[in-house]
Amino acid sequence: MIVALAGGVGGAKLASGLAEVLPPEELAVVVNTGDDFSHLGLRISPDLDTMMYTLAGLASRELGWGIEGESWNFMRALERLGGETWFRLGDQDLATNVERTRRLAAGETLSAITADLSRRLGVRHLIIPMTDHPVRTIVVTDEGALGFQEYFVRRRCRPRLLAIEYAGAAEASPPGELTKILESRQFEALIICPSNPYLSIAPILAVPGLRSRLQALKAPKIAVTPIVAGRAVKGPAAKIMRELGRESSALEVARHYGGFVDGFVLDAQDRQLKAPIEALGQKVLAVNTVMESSADRAALARATLQFAAETALLRSSGR
Amino acid sequence: MIVALAGGVGGAKLASGLAEVLPPEELAVVVNTGDDFSHLGLRISPDLDTMMYTLAGLASRELGWGIEGESWNFMRALERLGGETWFRLGDQDLATNVERTRRLAAGETLSAITADLSRRLGVRHLIIPMTDHPVRTIVVTDEGALGFQEYFVRRRCRPRLLAIEYAGAAEASPPGELTKILESRQFEALIICPSNPYLSIAPILAVPGLRSRLQALKAPKIAVTPIVAGRAVKGPAAKIMRELGRESSALEVARHYGGFVDGFVLDAQDRQLKAPIEALGQKVLAVNTVMESSADRAALARATLQFAAETALLRSSGR
Repeated sequence: MIVALAGGVGGAKLASGLAEVLPPEELAVVVNTGDDFSHLGLRISPDLDTMMYTLAGLASRELGWGIEGESWNFMRALERLGGETWFRLGDQDLATNVERTRRLAAGETLSAITADLSRRLGVRHLIIPMTDHPVRTIVVTDEGALGFQEYFVRRRCRPRLLAIEYAGAAEASPPGELTKILESRQFEALIICPSNPYLSIAPILAVPGLRSRLQALKAPKIAVTPIVAGRAVKGPAAKIMRELGRESSALEVARHYGGFVDGFVLDAQDRQLKAPIEALGQKVLAVNTVMESSADRAALARATLQFAAETALLRSSGR
Repeated sequence: MIVALAGGVGGAKLASGLAEVLPPEELAVVVNTGDDFSHLGLRISPDLDTMMYTLAGLASRELGWGIEGESWNFMRALERLGGETWFRLGDQDLATNVERTRRLAAGETLSAITADLSRRLGVRHLIIPMTDHPVRTIVVTDEGALGFQEYFVRRRCRPRLLAIEYAGAAEASPPGELTKILESRQFEALIICPSNPYLSIAPILAVPGLRSRLQALKAPKIAVTPIVAGRAVKGPAAKIMRELGRESSALEVARHYGGFVDGFVLDAQDRQLKAPIEALGQKVLAVNTVMESSADRAALARATLQFAAETALLRSSGR
């Protein structure tokens, strides 16, 4: 069993590659829920839905999020009524959000609902929210503290970021099904997908029972870089790193995960960073990490799994 | 000022005729909310929305309810997710329901929300819910007590009706704006639209402060028949009358409103019922009441207003 940690679009690409090369019973994707929020009375889980739509083969190829061929008649009607339209909800996507909200209100857990909705959309692999508890990523900026979507979508990451908080994380715990997997002997490797380390992966690792179990893990832990040639493949990771006073580089990401991961997958363009990252005590694989086609996704998944297996062998032989 | 009482489709037709012939400040349409219910976590007000869409010129010409050119992508996606699809909500209609639910949860009254949404859709006349309190029409049938939409939409009025209850009506009161109109000297006539007397008009008249103010009224009260040649123009009125042990006729409707109304608008096809209804003490006008075109709506509105004015004159001269 491989466990992957992921946020939205970038993480979902590698997760779909992993889903292509691994059978359903050998992959569990743990998804960030720090971006979740309540909007228009609905409980929205952007990363969970991006993962679900991507693994179901329904994701919009153009946007990376949302559903391919989505219609926007609800949004247009809401605009006519003077409603809030800064967060775009497509007509089909709305069904996911209405149904999730209804089932949460009826007392079901987010993990149970996610498992069921995924199955109905034809997803064969396991998608698990990092926790069933409410955790909310708060972005502290020069314009005050903002909810994640307020910062990310409404303000388009424009305010200068000062700090990030994961409200509620200290009281959160992983869903039972995830704990079971993490404690099982079948757990072979952890893969941190090329998602934003601060906004997507950090909230997951902020869940105490999840972090401690992963730290105690004997299986190898591999991170795949979200930064290539100093730039984020998608999203605000590079901007955020600069605002936090760090250089926007794969080396800095490796430092961020230092002590936690055993191996680091670097983009071939950043080959010159191999030695400095190895100096941090991490094994390094340099390959193409920019996933444009589905063949790219599967290739990176295969290379990463192979690298994890080699890292495990090296570890068991005392390096 | 003319006050009209109405339910959904049939009532909305005459209300749109009245709106065509009366300026905005001279018409208030009071709408049944006994059909309202919570579904998918949303607060649905079918009759209010039918009225709003009809007066906005947005109503589906084919269905009578919902929005012309509506799309159903939400419903299809909800079906794929295993959600409840027996109550059809179009993508645009959903915006009305999401926005109303959000604003109710934020503490606004249904009447304030209705006034604002109507205005935004271009409705110039006043649409007022019968009350801001929750009143729920319960249909007691041979298969047990059913919520109105459960009976009407899900079961398509098939169970045999034994009784109708208006839960919460005793504790309800009319919205402040409506009370103001009913107590003003500008109030010239009450028109009961050709809506179902038991399912659409009775819930309105079950609101104590509304019924008492209307009973005390000096202005003439006119009912327009929803039954023509023994059949309901639309909906289950005739079936319900038979199940309640009454004949399905305009005469029976006049008896039902007996003592409350001063005048009765009968369809020209039922001319033979003029004398028996006059024997109940009601003035009678026999005209075409079946509204197929918008010209029919305006013609019936004009005839009814003229009839109300004559009834008022007769009353003031001691008949």
